[in-house]
Amino acid sequence: MITENNIDKLAFRHALGNFATGITVMTATSPEGNRVGVTANSFNSVSLEPALILWSIEKTSSSFSVFETASHFAVNILAADQMHLSNHFAKRSDDKFAAIDFEEGRANTPLLKGCAATFQCERHAVIEGGDHWIIIGKVVAFNDEGKAPLLYHQGSYSLVMPLGRQNPTKESNTENNIDIAQSDNELNNYLYFLMIQAIRSYQADYQPKQLGTGLHTAEARILMSLKTEQNLTLETLSGQVNMPDHDLQDAINLLQNKGFISKQGADFSLQDAGKEMATTLWKIALDEQKHKFENFSDEEVTTFKRMLIDLINQH
Amino acid sequence: MITENNIDKLAFRHALGNFATGITVMTATSPEGNRVGVTANSFNSVSLEPALILWSIEKTSSSFSVFETASHFAVNILAADQMHLSNHFAKRSDDKFAAIDFEEGRANTPLLKGCAATFQCERHAVIEGGDHWIIIGKVVAFNDEGKAPLLYHQGSYSLVMPLGRQNPTKESNTENNIDIAQSDNELNNYLYFLMIQAIRSYQADYQPKQLGTGLHTAEARILMSLKTEQNLTLETLSGQVNMPDHDLQDAINLLQNKGFISKQGADFSLQDAGKEMATTLWKIALDEQKHKFENFSDEEVTTFKRMLIDLINQH
Repeated sequence: MITENNIDKLAFRHALGNFATGITVMTATSPEGNRVGVTANSFNSVSLEPALILWSIEKTSSSFSVFETASHFAVNILAADQMHLSNHFAKRSDDKFAAIDFEEGRANTPLLKGCAATFQCERHAVIEGGDHWIIIGKVVAFNDEGKAPLLYHQGSYSLVMPLGRQNPTKESNTENNIDIAQSDNELNNYLYFLMIQAIRSYQADYQPKQLGTGLHTAEARILMSLKTEQNLTLETLSGQVNMPDHDLQDAINLLQNKGFISKQGADFSLQDAGKEMATTLWKIALDEQKHKFENFSDEEVTTFKRMLIDLINQH
Repeated sequence: MITENNIDKLAFRHALGNFATGITVMTATSPEGNRVGVTANSFNSVSLEPALILWSIEKTSSSFSVFETASHFAVNILAADQMHLSNHFAKRSDDKFAAIDFEEGRANTPLLKGCAATFQCERHAVIEGGDHWIIIGKVVAFNDEGKAPLLYHQGSYSLVMPLGRQNPTKESNTENNIDIAQSDNELNNYLYFLMIQAIRSYQADYQPKQLGTGLHTAEARILMSLKTEQNLTLETLSGQVNMPDHDLQDAINLLQNKGFISKQGADFSLQDAGKEMATTLWKIALDEQKHKFENFSDEEVTTFKRMLIDLINQH
């Protein structure tokens, strides 16, 4: 779909969602001592020498005045287990730092704990960019914890999956398959790498089939959740589908406009068209599962499932 | 580690690498018909109304003159299977488009095929940002394919992994474990979701142990690859570890400086200290594997492995 001239805002945001990013919380303290923190995924590096980074903030944001007056701000790159901080700092609240664990950096800037990395910056420049201000900062100190990061992709929270080897099948037989009996390469026997490759392979086959319904993954997941658990509040649904509130609301609006779901009191539930679509989505999912495991017995599949659940419960 | 005032450039780049991003190829054609394309992960959205995006390009880039004079440029967001395009457009070459499949958009801008999304932009503004130019574009058309994207994280190519449910153990027993026999929830029986959660759980326990050696994942993977396959050329190593050339070279320099690897002719191999570290890394990996699967018999683990390999080979 190419949209000319008149940009459809929701379609534009959906298209931008294909660019996966990490998630940051930008923090600052005004000279008067007012602390602000906002969730942003518009962060990126600009320059190595001098060390410059940028991000952008909505012109209507009430926090902007602090970022405009504070001499410093901090970029807190959220780790995979910090979804709650992303949600927390994306909401309006009188004192966002009341129950938050932080230290203070330069100019009393709040530095969140447990992040993947933190950059302390001097305000370098503020540039107009349509309905946002682009804030450029000069990095004066940083902290690198190297933790797995939280991701934002197509309106959902996600994680980074390391790529397996490019040629896992390199040393294998003529059909280009891994022959486990023949392989004495440690890399081909290492279950963690194999699990990653198996997921990648599964996803590559399954995802296009799901997208073929015209729904994005997150929308599909909302319908699939409502099919299995019927009535769900916004809060429960949010925990099920792992989406920021703003994106969840967009997806719900879209599903309501399509007549797939409706709201009664605090609960969302499937309408008839939604039940039909949810059934289709589950059929795609379960047909794919059946196809993917057709070379194995029910007993073997049960063992496989037991082992996955054991891995999940160990953490 | 907090670095004050004098920013160590490599450490700064490492810390920035914690912010995972998608990968784009920026393309344009000069009024004289010269096509350029550069790999960039500095892309981000700025404004919805008007629809503005930005990215930055090194001031020393020979392609900048085309982006400076062309009325339009395109943002091509690479899909998960387009690592070759990321590598291709990151290298210098006389005619980068010789063997590339593309269409032409506004102002003859090359639009790469098979991307996750493509944005056609008018040049809106060019702003100085240290050793880079920040290019702001106004989006005039876009194409949304919704494909799984290629990621860049800590110097390596990676993929997006959807987050499983936040509370997979919600309906389970008092020990907060999934009880497979008791669960009749489709979501708890769906192997694709369970595989994702199992990987996430495995990664959360394993990765900190690997990072505890002081090596980043990519550096660890280089040593682990060289341990299993001995002498490898840069090209083979690149395929094994899935890193952009620039980052692979950084990691190799670091490992050479630490006395872990050396180069003889075209081949890289482990030095004694490197062999020792690789042995440690494999021990961490295999100890973790043993621990993770201790509740299961050798036969069950073999079945698990066979099923993973079957999934990998089906794609």
